[in-house]
Amino acid sequence: MTILCALSDFFFEYETPRQVLVRNRRVGVVCRLIQLGVLVYIIGWVFIYEKGYQSTDTAISSVFTKMKGVGYTNDSGGERVWDVADYVFPSQGDSSFVVMTNYIMTEGQSMGTCPELPGKHDCSTDADCEGGSFKRTGNGEMTGVCVKRTKTCEVLAWCPVEDDREVPDPPLLLSAENYTLFIKNSVTFPAFDVSRSNLVEDIDSNYISRCLYHPDNAPLCPIFKLGDIIKLSDLDFQTIAKVGGAIGIVVDWTCNFDVDVKHCKPEYTFHGLYGSKEGASVGYNFRFARHYMEDKIQKRTLLKVFGIRFDIIVHSLARKFDIIPTLTAIGSGVGIFGVATVVCDLVLLYLLPKREFYKNMKFKYTDTQVQVRPLQK
Amino acid sequence: MTILCALSDFFFEYETPRQVLVRNRRVGVVCRLIQLGVLVYIIGWVFIYEKGYQSTDTAISSVFTKMKGVGYTNDSGGERVWDVADYVFPSQGDSSFVVMTNYIMTEGQSMGTCPELPGKHDCSTDADCEGGSFKRTGNGEMTGVCVKRTKTCEVLAWCPVEDDREVPDPPLLLSAENYTLFIKNSVTFPAFDVSRSNLVEDIDSNYISRCLYHPDNAPLCPIFKLGDIIKLSDLDFQTIAKVGGAIGIVVDWTCNFDVDVKHCKPEYTFHGLYGSKEGASVGYNFRFARHYMEDKIQKRTLLKVFGIRFDIIVHSLARKFDIIPTLTAIGSGVGIFGVATVVCDLVLLYLLPKREFYKNMKFKYTDTQVQVRPLQK
Amino acid sequence: MTILCALSDFFFEYETPRQVLVRNRRVGVVCRLIQLGVLVYIIGWVFIYEKGYQSTDTAISSVFTKMKGVGYTNDSGGERVWDVADYVFPSQGDSSFVVMTNYIMTEGQSMGTCPELPGKHDCSTDADCEGGSFKRTGNGEMTGVCVKRTKTCEVLAWCPVEDDREVPDPPLLLSAENYTLFIKNSVTFPAFDVSRSNLVEDIDSNYISRCLYHPDNAPLCPIFKLGDIIKLSDLDFQTIAKVGGAIGIVVDWTCNFDVDVKHCKPEYTFHGLYGSKEGASVGYNFRFARHYMEDKIQKRTLLKVFGIRFDIIVHSLARKFDIIPTLTAIGSGVGIFGVATVVCDLVLLYLLPKREFYKNMKFKYTDTQVQVRPLQK
Repeated sequence: MTILCALSDFFFEYETPRQVLVRNRRVGVVCRLIQLGVLVYIIGWVFIYEKGYQSTDTAISSVFTKMKGVGYTNDSGGERVWDVADYVFPSQGDSSFVVMTNYIMTEGQSMGTCPELPGKHDCSTDADCEGGSFKRTGNGEMTGVCVKRTKTCEVLAWCPVEDDREVPDPPLLLSAENYTLFIKNSVTFPAFDVSRSNLVEDIDSNYISRCLYHPDNAPLCPIFKLGDIIKLSDLDFQTIAKVGGAIGIVVDWTCNFDVDVKHCKPEYTFHGLYGSKEGASVGYNFRFARHYMEDKIQKRTLLKVFGIRFDIIVHSLARKFDIIPTLTAIGSGVGIFGVATVVCDLVLLYLLPKREFYKNMKFKYTDTQVQVRPLQK
Repeated sequence: MTILCALSDFFFEYETPRQVLVRNRRVGVVCRLIQLGVLVYIIGWVFIYEKGYQSTDTAISSVFTKMKGVGYTNDSGGERVWDVADYVFPSQGDSSFVVMTNYIMTEGQSMGTCPELPGKHDCSTDADCEGGSFKRTGNGEMTGVCVKRTKTCEVLAWCPVEDDREVPDPPLLLSAENYTLFIKNSVTFPAFDVSRSNLVEDIDSNYISRCLYHPDNAPLCPIFKLGDIIKLSDLDFQTIAKVGGAIGIVVDWTCNFDVDVKHCKPEYTFHGLYGSKEGASVGYNFRFARHYMEDKIQKRTLLKVFGIRFDIIVHSLARKFDIIPTLTAIGSGVGIFGVATVVCDLVLLYLLPKREFYKNMKFKYTDTQVQVRPLQK
Repeated sequence: MTILCALSDFFFEYETPRQVLVRNRRVGVVCRLIQLGVLVYIIGWVFIYEKGYQSTDTAISSVFTKMKGVGYTNDSGGERVWDVADYVFPSQGDSSFVVMTNYIMTEGQSMGTCPELPGKHDCSTDADCEGGSFKRTGNGEMTGVCVKRTKTCEVLAWCPVEDDREVPDPPLLLSAENYTLFIKNSVTFPAFDVSRSNLVEDIDSNYISRCLYHPDNAPLCPIFKLGDIIKLSDLDFQTIAKVGGAIGIVVDWTCNFDVDVKHCKPEYTFHGLYGSKEGASVGYNFRFARHYMEDKIQKRTLLKVFGIRFDIIVHSLARKFDIIPTLTAIGSGVGIFGVATVVCDLVLLYLLPKREFYKNMKFKYTDTQVQVRPLQK
């Protein structure tokens, strides 16, 4: 037979496995149920629940934030108001920023020598203060002198040193509760070539000018009251305003592009990031200096800022029908069907009373001494 | 038969399904075509097009940016130049930064009382201005006085309040068009242990000192002219420079590590992020203050900065041959082959005229009354 | 036969493929070995090594950093100390920040005209300096005058212009080696609803107050000495402190949630990001200005900051048992088993001496002229 013939044979032939049709109610029902289970799993779970027929993509996103509102304090320095340029760090509207709610201000620091803060480096004689050395948590370089009056080492530092032993309580900028935060977020799903903004179809400038986010009544309004955010994060405003804290605002874009793209809307959730639950290292604060010249001398105003740090976290997952995962899921499902057959065969060949009969129906043996078995066909 | 015998039997035996070779041209051709289709799908689509034999990884990336160029303005405050330390926010070369292109400067603000801006809180009598209250969009705390001259409420605020009713047009820093942006980006694919920098093999310091990015002529030059970026984002420089805007610079690392690593090169694309297409909330601006002391009084210069915000977004996807996805794809493909067999069997057993004949060839029945069917073998 | 009967038939029947049991040692051993290989691959590689029975998730993370330590310099401007508010940019504890280690300070700049730096724009006559034009790398707008004394063009700029031709060596803030960095990092795996902090169970405030990270002795201490970080990144502190550099601190959360969640701990690794290996553009620096008013004139102190930029990069991958990937892996494995059968059949039907015999055992032919073949059953 030539190769050509073999090839034509191959093309005009079709192989199909020979099968035994076992007419046994028990085996039939058991196996059909197993197969049904596999089918239900594949269709119900993989396809409908987990949407295995879709491919997924995460977004490239860009966030811009803007705070509005004015704070007011009346402490030793007199009445003053705090506007956005004063209480937001950094000022340019990043996705991660801090809103100052409390502070310890040390005005008029200049380079010089002064005693350390009590508790930072106590001493009784000069010998306790090694000149030229530093303490990791100290404010400056020790001069080697022990100041009698305060019983602390003298340091070369920005003087006077900051006294942060007492944090103002109630926090100085409690009015921060009424500030509002505006979030502008645009996402692009490169695999599906879709771009969305959190200012979706229904949100126009008229709506924005008067709306305020509410989880049930206005879930798409991109303007948030700070007090609301804290409440929705299950935190207490007064506490967090005093010692500081961090809140994650998750903008969740879970989209199904098999339906109209206008159903792809953001969902906002709020989480305390390092709250009071942890024993170690509560609060959030940092130090910030404003430098200026006075009488030719470089001076600075040091602010220990306690504040709420907001991290806008964009979490995105889009899905769309794709032929590859669909066929992979089907192929895998057919494979699992094979497992069902194996299980049924085990029942048939090892558990049934007539197993010898079925074994002979199913198998043909290639060696002769077996071929004489009575039921062998 | 002992267990040992059964085991040796199992090891020296081999099961292979018995098959019917259907010598029927129609069925043969149909089924071979179906099988061919599945084979072409698996090899062509899954393997060649979607590269299903490769595993993927995304990169850990680090971006550093540096602006160069000098701006020049000549307004009421006299001639002045603006260098990098003046017009880039923040200054330390982050992956997200703002280049100031226009501004409203309010110099010499100090804490005090002054009338609000017309339009912010108009009044006719003191009763319209509730003392001690705030307006969300206002500049300060109302004192309860209505200023006759301006017909607006008096506020405790940084005075004089900023007048941002008119945005300078043309933008003050049109020269920003000629600034250049240098991007340094390194990516690491942890799964493949490969690190790459956007300063690839051919890019040396000599080339960098004289090159300028061009999508066709110099696609790997990491130095970009701002005007070019705006143009490539399909935006108008004059408009965006006036009211501000945001541009995403996507550095795309799509790499195939089955070929030499030197072919792994970045591609730059430019996208307007919140452009003029959206109806609501166009532009980009923020407020920024410089504090200083003058005659023992704390003062500040407030800048309302309109600018272009650049987000350098690194999008990475590397692929490399991996045995797991390869075998998963093959296994899944064999499963889909099984589907082809099922389809062919349906044709054979239900559609062909000689279907009864084929049915008897394929199936053996376990109950006797069927065994007497004429064609049963 | 009615439809009902067909349906009941279908439900009480069970199809199982008929198989040939080839009692041939060679074929048996070869095929069992191939099947064993596939089984070992599926169980060993897919399940145990690659954990194919688990689904994966990456985390949403939030990072907060805090530096501690004081630097000391003694240059022309006299003795001074540098604290956190002076040497960290930005100050609010971002995941990406710069620690200043060296600087060139240009104090008392004001807007005016002065000669350019030699080398920036040299000239011999006024004709070399085109009035009103800019040079990309220059400091200001040319006035059109060539200054005889310096043989450079005069520019309108912040004067005097910065002279950055010589970088201080040794770096001014070598003491940066002893600064410490505290990292607070919380991760949330949304798919598994698990939140973790790098302050894990054993880390309390008492431990934090005295510990220092060491890769072997204290791998979970979140406080790092800068000198240690540089050393662990295989960099030389003195070099990187002089010209600047960038270091990536990768916090690796590779977690298996099939075991107790307390085993989910971070691992810290350190990588030089743009080190001295690259020929082009080594170092890291940026310019930063402090504005102030002196005698009603706006002045600024310009700092060219050389520093170490730290990028805290959170890399997370959590795994947990999931039924879908398990069944997909099993289904795919059964598919690969099918491949094993195909390979064995090829051996059986084309390579063995008794191949004709086996072919006849395996196949039944539907056309008569083949049925008369001697061994056809």
